[in-house]
This record gives sequence, C-alpha cells and structure tokens, in this order.
Amino acid sequence: MKTKIENSLRKSLNGHTQSSVDSEKITSEPNGGARISAFPASRKIYVSGKRHSQIRVPMREISLTANDHRGSNGQAATASDPALRAYDTSGPYTDPEHQVNVSRGLPRIRSSWDASTDRLRSPEKLGHNVTQMHFARRGIITPEMEFVAIRESLRNEAYRDLIERQHAGHNFGASIPCEITPEFVRDEIARGRAIIPANINHPELEPMIIGRNFLVKINANIGNSAVASTIEEEVEKMVWAIRWGADTVMDLSTGKNIHETREWILRNSPVPIGTVPIYQALEKVGGKAEELTWGIFRDTLIEQAEQGVDYFTIHAGVRLRYVPLTAKRVTGIVSRGGSILAKWCLAHHQENFLYTHFEDVCEIMKAYDVSFSLGDGLRPGCIADANDAAQFGELETLGELTKIAWKHDVQVMIEGPGHIPMHMIKENMDRQLAACDEAPFYTLGPLTTDIAPGYDHITSAIGAAMIGWYGCALLCYVTPKEHLGLPDRDDVREGVIAYRIAAHAADLAKGHPGAQLRDDVLSKARFEFRWEDQFNLSLDPERAREFHDATLPQDGAKVAHFCSMCGPQFCSMKITQDVRDYAAKMGVAESEAIQVGMSEKAAEFRQSEPRA
Amino acid sequence: MKTKIENSLRKSLNGHTQSSVDSEKITSEPNGGARISAFPASRKIYVSGKRHSQIRVPMREISLTANDHRGSNGQAATASDPALRAYDTSGPYTDPEHQVNVSRGLPRIRSSWDASTDRLRSPEKLGHNVTQMHFARRGIITPEMEFVAIRESLRNEAYRDLIERQHAGHNFGASIPCEITPEFVRDEIARGRAIIPANINHPELEPMIIGRNFLVKINANIGNSAVASTIEEEVEKMVWAIRWGADTVMDLSTGKNIHETREWILRNSPVPIGTVPIYQALEKVGGKAEELTWGIFRDTLIEQAEQGVDYFTIHAGVRLRYVPLTAKRVTGIVSRGGSILAKWCLAHHQENFLYTHFEDVCEIMKAYDVSFSLGDGLRPGCIADANDAAQFGELETLGELTKIAWKHDVQVMIEGPGHIPMHMIKENMDRQLAACDEAPFYTLGPLTTDIAPGYDHITSAIGAAMIGWYGCALLCYVTPKEHLGLPDRDDVREGVIAYRIAAHAADLAKGHPGAQLRDDVLSKARFEFRWEDQFNLSLDPERAREFHDATLPQDGAKVAHFCSMCGPQFCSMKITQDVRDYAAKMGVAESEAIQVGMSEKAAEFRQSEPRA
Repeated sequence: MKTKIENSLRKSLNGHTQSSVDSEKITSEPNGGARISAFPASRKIYVSGKRHSQIRVPMREISLTANDHRGSNGQAATASDPALRAYDTSGPYTDPEHQVNVSRGLPRIRSSWDASTDRLRSPEKLGHNVTQMHFARRGIITPEMEFVAIRESLRNEAYRDLIERQHAGHNFGASIPCEITPEFVRDEIARGRAIIPANINHPELEPMIIGRNFLVKINANIGNSAVASTIEEEVEKMVWAIRWGADTVMDLSTGKNIHETREWILRNSPVPIGTVPIYQALEKVGGKAEELTWGIFRDTLIEQAEQGVDYFTIHAGVRLRYVPLTAKRVTGIVSRGGSILAKWCLAHHQENFLYTHFEDVCEIMKAYDVSFSLGDGLRPGCIADANDAAQFGELETLGELTKIAWKHDVQVMIEGPGHIPMHMIKENMDRQLAACDEAPFYTLGPLTTDIAPGYDHITSAIGAAMIGWYGCALLCYVTPKEHLGLPDRDDVREGVIAYRIAAHAADLAKGHPGAQLRDDVLSKARFEFRWEDQFNLSLDPERAREFHDATLPQDGAKVAHFCSMCGPQFCSMKITQDVRDYAAKMGVAESEAIQVGMSEKAAEFRQSEPRA
Repeated sequence: MKTKIENSLRKSLNGHTQSSVDSEKITSEPNGGARISAFPASRKIYVSGKRHSQIRVPMREISLTANDHRGSNGQAATASDPALRAYDTSGPYTDPEHQVNVSRGLPRIRSSWDASTDRLRSPEKLGHNVTQMHFARRGIITPEMEFVAIRESLRNEAYRDLIERQHAGHNFGASIPCEITPEFVRDEIARGRAIIPANINHPELEPMIIGRNFLVKINANIGNSAVASTIEEEVEKMVWAIRWGADTVMDLSTGKNIHETREWILRNSPVPIGTVPIYQALEKVGGKAEELTWGIFRDTLIEQAEQGVDYFTIHAGVRLRYVPLTAKRVTGIVSRGGSILAKWCLAHHQENFLYTHFEDVCEIMKAYDVSFSLGDGLRPGCIADANDAAQFGELETLGELTKIAWKHDVQVMIEGPGHIPMHMIKENMDRQLAACDEAPFYTLGPLTTDIAPGYDHITSAIGAAMIGWYGCALLCYVTPKEHLGLPDRDDVREGVIAYRIAAHAADLAKGHPGAQLRDDVLSKARFEFRWEDQFNLSLDPERAREFHDATLPQDGAKVAHFCSMCGPQFCSMKITQDVRDYAAKMGVAESEAIQVGMSEKAAEFRQSEPRA
C-alpha cells in the first residue's frame, strides 16, 4: 500500500496536466527521496523565531531579473529590483533539502517546539485544555502564535517604505496594524476573532491563522466518494492543492477507507486538515441517518481527533424547529451534513443530538485543540433561497453555540453559504459578525448566479472576493466541476487559483499591509517588458508562460520590447517609456519636462525619440 | 477570397475546441447553404412588433423535460415546466430557416423597416440628423426602439406571476420598470441614459440597447494584429463570440487589411460593431503618431461610417494638460489610443486634435447615427495607478464632451477602466454618473488584481460584476490571454462566458425584471435531477454536459436520482424530497406535516420512507 501510494504520488507530481509545461519536476536525491521542484526563480527560505528559536517559518523568495529594457538605446541595464517574499503554502515539498517519503510522512516539526510549552500543556496545570485560545487568554504566546505572526508579515524589508506608505494611505485597513506582532495574534485569538487550527496530534503542521484582520485564506476540498477516486488520488490532490496555494484542506471522503485515507493525508500535510465527522459516523450505521447515536458520533470524533484532524465541521445548528422552514424552498436542504441531521431530527422527532450534546463535544475539542467549524446545514442551495428564515435562524443558533465553545476556550469559526446574489452578500457578513460576536466566517463561495454550471469557480469567485472584502476570513473553493462531478487535478488547480485571486483581491480591498506589493512589482515588470519576471511573480507562472508562448514561442520574445497584442511597430507602454526617457535625458523632472518649456522641447522630442 | 473565408468559416463552425462535444454541427441545406446548429433543446422564435409590424425580434426558447424524478416510487411523471425564453445574440446563424452565405452577408432586415420612418429620415426634414436620440427627443418611437423593448422583456408570459412577485420584492430595482415599453426606451434614449448603436449603413443589425436600466451587456474584442491572425479568423471569431453571448463586438484590427476585415465582419454581423478609428488612421501615416492630422482622421471616420460601424472609440479626452499627470505612474499610459494621442500632443505641443475638432466629429456621427464611445486613453494600467488625477481629469473632459455630443443629438457612452481594486470600484461609477450626466458607462473589466496573468478573465469578472451592479451598462470582456497574447477561439469562449456570468450576476443584484427566472428554473431542474434541463438551461450546455459525463458517462446517469458527488447511497437533495413526498402523502401542508403531530408521524416516516 505504502509503495503504491508513493509511486503514484511521485508519478503524479512528475506528470503534467495537459496544459502545464515541463518546469515541474521530481529531482532524484542520492538516497532515493524525491521532491517537487519549486516555481521558477523561487527559493524556499525560512525565518527563525525570536521568542521561540526552534520555529522556522517558510517563505518563497522570488528573484527578479535585471532591467535591460533600455538596452536598445544604448543605456546600461539597471540592477534588478529586490527579491519578493511571498506566502508559501506548499510545505517541505518545495524544499530542496527535504526528501519526500510518503510512508514516513513529513517531519514532525511541532514536536521540537513542545519543549518550550510542555509544562503549559501538562494536564495537571491546565485541566486537559490545550487550545491556542486557552493559552492566549492566559497571556501566553505559543510557538504557533509567533509562527503565524512572522508568516503573515512576510518581512519584505527591502520594500518597507512602500508598504508603510500604502498602509497609511488606505482608507479601509484601520483595524489591521502595519506590523503583525505575536502579541496582536494572541489578542485576536483570545478575543475569538481569529483561530489557529492546530491539533496537538498534527505535528507535521506549519501553523496558519484564520481571522479577518489577517490575510484571507482559502480551503480546498478533496475526498473520495462512493462513485470515484482512490486514497492515492486524494493524497496527490492534497499536495497538488497546496502547491497552487490552498491554505487548508478538507477531507470529505465517504465510502470505504475513510480512516486510512485521512491518516495518509494527515501524515503528509503541512496545512490544517478539516473533516465532517458525521460522514464517517454515517458509514458506521450503514448510511441510515436515523440510526445515528451520540455514542457513535462521539467515538468518531475521538478517533479523528486522535489522528490529528485540525478542525471539525459540526452541524449542531440544524435544530428541529428550523427544518420545516426549508420545505418551501426551491432546493430544500443541500448540505449533506444538514440533511443527515434533518433526517435524524424528523425520524426521531427529537432535537439534533449535536445540539443537545454540544458541551460534550467541547470537552473532546479542547483536549486536542480541534477547532470548531460550525456547519451551516441549512444554507441555501440556490439564489431563490438566499438569506431566508431557515438560514438566518440557524445562524442565530451558531452564535449561541460559539459562546458555549468560547466558555471552554475552544476555537470556533462559522460556516456560511453558498448561493447569494451580490446585493445580499453584505447582509450575510454583517449578520454573522453580529450573531457570532466576530468569530471568523468561512463561506463556500458564495455563487452569485445559478446559471453557469461548468464555470462555478467563476460565479463563486465573484462572491468570494466580495465577502472576503467585507470580512470573511476563509473562502472554501469551488471548482469548475461543482454540481456536475468530482474535481480532477486540473479542476483543483483551476479552483485554487480562482480562489487565490478572490482572496488577494479581498486583501487589496481590505488594505492588508504588504498585499499590494506583489501587484506593484509585477506591474512594474510588465511595464518594463521583463517577461520572465511577470511570469514568475504571477499566481500560476506555468500558465502565464504557456499563454505567452502560444503566440510568441521564440526565446527572443521573452526580452522583446513589445508583445503579441500590438506587435513590434507600436506599443503603448513603449511610448510612455519614451516620454520618460526623454524627460530623463533632458535632465528635468518628468512633469516639469512636459509642463515647462514644452513648446521649445517639442521639436527636440520629435528629433530625438527612438524610431521603432 | 470569398470562398476562402466561407470555407474557413464553415470548417471553423463545424470544428470543435478540444473540450467541446459534438452537439455543434453544420447542417447542409439543399442549396448548399449552412448554419450553426442551435444549442440543445433550443429553438429560434421571433416576436413581432405591434407598432412596427415588420420587426421580428429573435429569442431562444429552451424546452424542458417532464419531471420523472418520482418514477422510482411509482408515482406518475409530472408535466414539464413551461419553456423558458432567453435573450439571443447569435443572430440568423442559429435559425434553421436561414442559409449562411458569407459572401452575400446577412439579410438586410432593417432595410424593410425604413418604409415606416423614411420620411422622418429625409434630410429635408431633419437636417441630416438620423440618430436614435434625435428621433427620441422628438417623441418618435423608431422600429429599433420597439425592437429592443421587446427584446429586453423576453415575454416569458408563462412565468409572469413569479417575475412580478420577484420584481416587487427587490430592494434595488426601483428605477427599472417591470415591463420594458417602447416609451420607456424612447425616454431613456432621449435622456441620454441609454443608446442603441445602429449605423444606418448596418442594415444587418438586430438592434440592442445599452443603458443601466436595461440588461447589462457585454462586448467581445476581436481583431488581427501585426503579429498574428487573418481576416477569416476574425470573422469566425465574431460568429463564435455571438454564439456564446457577446452583445457587441469591437474590431480592433491593426496592420494590413483593416478595411477589408471590417467589411467582412460588418456584412455578417447581427450585433453592433465598434472600432477605434485612430488605429486605421495611424496605419495611413506609417505608424508615426506625430504625423496624424485631422484631415486623415476625418477621412477615416467617414470611410468607416460609410461601411456601417455602429460606434467609434474616440480618445478626445486625452488633453495635453493631463499627459504629464501620467509620468509618475507605475505603468504610464496603457491605452493604445491614449498613447497615440499623448505622443501627438507632446510632439506638437498642441491640444489633442480630436478635442479641438470634436464638433466636426459630431457632424459625421449624426449623419450616420454612429454612437460615441468616448475613450479613456488615460485609464490606469495597474492597481497602483487606479483612480488617479490623470484618470479623473480625463473623465471630467469626457463629461464636457458628452454635453457637446448631446447638443447634436449624438448618442454617447463613456469608456472606463481597466485595473481597480474592489474598494475603489464604486467611486469610478459614482464619478462617471456625476461627470457624464448618466451617459452609459462601458468598462474594461475592471481587473481587481494584477497578479494573475493567464486568469484575467477571472480577476476582471469580479470587478465587472460589481461595477455592473453599481450601474455600468456594458462590460468589455477580458480573455485568459490578456497581457500575454492574442485570444484564440477557446479564449473567446472563456472570456464571453465569464462576462455573461458577470453581467447576469449584476442583473440579479440590480433586480432586472425576469433575470432571476433562469436561475430559478435551472435550480428547480437541478433539485429534481433533470440533468438534461440543467445542462440546456446553462450558459454553456456543452461544457456542463461534458463535465458531468467525465464522471458518469452512462446515459442512465442523466436521469439518475443522484450524482457523482455523493453517489447513489445518499443524497441531500433526495432527503429533502423525501420529506416533501412524505408530507404530500400524508395529505397535509408541508410545514404542518412537520410542525403538527410530529411525534406520532415520526414512526410512520421511518417505516414509509423509500430505502435507497
């Protein structure tokens, strides 16, 4: 089994989607290990902690080429701009020092951190509560907190002035400090406004934070179903998803091998893994929802918590009283978990056992630091059902449960829809913040129209970007196959990139410090015809290069001072550059060159400008 | 040449993109003509005018299948829902009665309309002014106005009650009446708040309207460049773009054969064609911007107006005084037209000749009813440059020019950016409405981030949907190749669909009467497992079917009561259905079935429910 998965993984990581190029390779290491090559011009770096010297925070450093765009008129090439540091979700797989060994799993990095906090975590002292929130509320900054503080700020010191200037000039980012400190992280977690999903039994984890005063994060769903796919494919999909930028991964497997699939994913995952435990519980009762019991569910929770799952979707808000409110909907109940619980409630005419046993669930969560992802089992399944009484009724209950979880110092985020037309999105965010006292919101999209199956990564990226701007902290991706089938590797890539776009667009709109830096550095590269830099700085360097080369495959075109859109004769960017070159040559400030003495210089300009 | 283009077009229409399926065919007609097959389950219908009986407004009617999803528990299939009428941009190409003959061009439908308005258009009476605005201001409802009134309302009478209920319940659509009448169209045009781009020399046109109280429209750019592509390819792209839903097409050809390319496109285009005349004028002076003159430009305008171009992008707002404001930008001037004019202004140190000759331009426009698309030559080319002084300075001038054009009764829309982070989009819309007295806005995207070349159809669909909601009337598409290369057929399809999504999401948010109907009908089909209907109602039926079949190719799966996501054992949609079936069987209203007498019925429910 192990060898099979490993071979399959290697093959998969080596193999290409039809549309990708061959920059992605497995390099053989002396002892037979393997790794994914990093993106072009990128290297893995680590930044060490100050309080906790054991932590090493991974980042991706993208180096830039020298600016030789002025070469044609005889000027010397200028030095390249400083390398750009980018957030890196890909884990050790892109580290040349790391040798992938799927059967051994990833290095258990957090085990070495325990030394500093061992005593804090001892049951004697803290009564079996090991949550980040528990420590935060006691004023303790854990290694995980310092880790995410460094990770969020990226330390692009070379661009510090620009970042500070932009942060000061932004109208919307008042609540986000320019410098993310460990203290700020601790305060946000203590307040319940952010979570670090980090099961103590998931030592392979590189911690990340979810909260609206941090970078917007994205989740990729994977998981086999009764119809298709295997364990190997799911492990591959996880690695593939984080390569493209997934911050968390949910394993939604159903059918056979749920436990084993999860074990392989967890041991090889540097990102938090979430699950919906009711899926496995349902398997244990042969798929008959009405035969579910609290005991079966509790055992499932413990089984998964022991394995190291970082967050659980728990549909405790599907109360009996809300179920009838869905009967007149166009699409009824579309959440699997929601309909399982609804079926159970109706069959027994009893209150949802997850609701009645919620404090029991909390006891398990706090013993492992599993975070709640309170499920929206009654979320609308279409535009017509958006923002209805069933949905908002459940949301009120999720707020009530949030407070109970917080009483136990258990970390909580709240799941949200789904399908919402644009003009109703903000109401969702505002109500969630009010009902759940600012606990992080985690939405699926939302899709802003129902008429484009096959393109729901786009219908939902629109809603995701907007709700991210309004304050949603985690965006669950939607792939092009949504509503139609199970995503394959290409779909995962498309979905992750669409959601990286949505998350980044939201970070820009929120004024997250440093977010705009990558846009600016890429745009400057574009303007200066540094094609390689434009590719390398993009979210998908392989796609960008491939598309460019479809029209202009020659190597020379990579340094050409034109592109295929306008051709060599004329280029608008070149004209602007000519104007600046002229101003520089005349030895006057650019605006002065144009505003002052324009008429006498006009003739000169016509003589001196380079002819294309 | 003609045969070459025709063969190429047929081949192209018959050929498939890699990812499409074989539902798209050319049917041979007895006399050797050919047509594109319509989308599955769709037929072309025409609605006749009341005032102008000659007009026949095309629509696409999508028929639905009977609802047989209850078959498994022995109940009879219900009758199918009424057919849905959808807006149809595809022209005669999808009409089985029409025989495509590219060398002959499309039927000159508007020629037969002239009888009714001939006298009105006589130069003696109206002084060479033939614009729709001119007639509108005189209280005259032209055939074009009645045509678009019928086209906008779609006449989905079978769903009238639902449409009226939704329209009444929408909070945002106050300015859009539930019934679009010819009088409303006339008033909006007279007010300058909408335009019907319809050159009198483009008789093949099926008129459409652009204005924020109508359906949001999308534009597809095509056009060869010095680097790649041929006339044949451009005609094919036009037909391809309107098949997928482009409402207007801009021919941005540069290089050789500009005139001939445009002629072929116009004679075969049922949608308005826009151009940027400065591109051709520049060719006439060998690509040297500083050698442009008003005379050369004027001749180019007349040449193109004679051919039948429906709207011209005119960069008359690039005033000398604004040019220096771009010098410190990250990406300077990125509009081709803008940089041509900027270069001219600097070289001559004179005011832009399009600005100084603007009234002369108006004289040409009104003689043919060419609409202005006042170009934003100084639009920002990246996030860093968004909403700057150069951009907004030019916008003020465009407002000034709008009033001059209106003095001549010339129709006007205003072009807008480009690249704008989400939080700055609304300011663009609000300023445009104020500066340009509510003339329709026509934006390129906007892209909401710069970091995703290869995916700019998505980065920009986000911005396009938002600005459409805020009031933008026409969205210029962006393809995945933006910034990287020239779009091919696949890119055109991706770009058009992404923008149909954005436009429709905006229509929903604005509360356009009837817009939500398609979402509701599709969602109901989805919920009832009518897979064929779900495919056929979607924006891209071929893609939806292909994606479904990738996991479940068997014919049986098209009527299966489950899908590949959850498999046959369990399905959330099925559970909701079970709840409703149960309620119906018990002979009580659904909500009562659950709220009243729940406990005694719980046992029955467990016994009676169908086992999967």
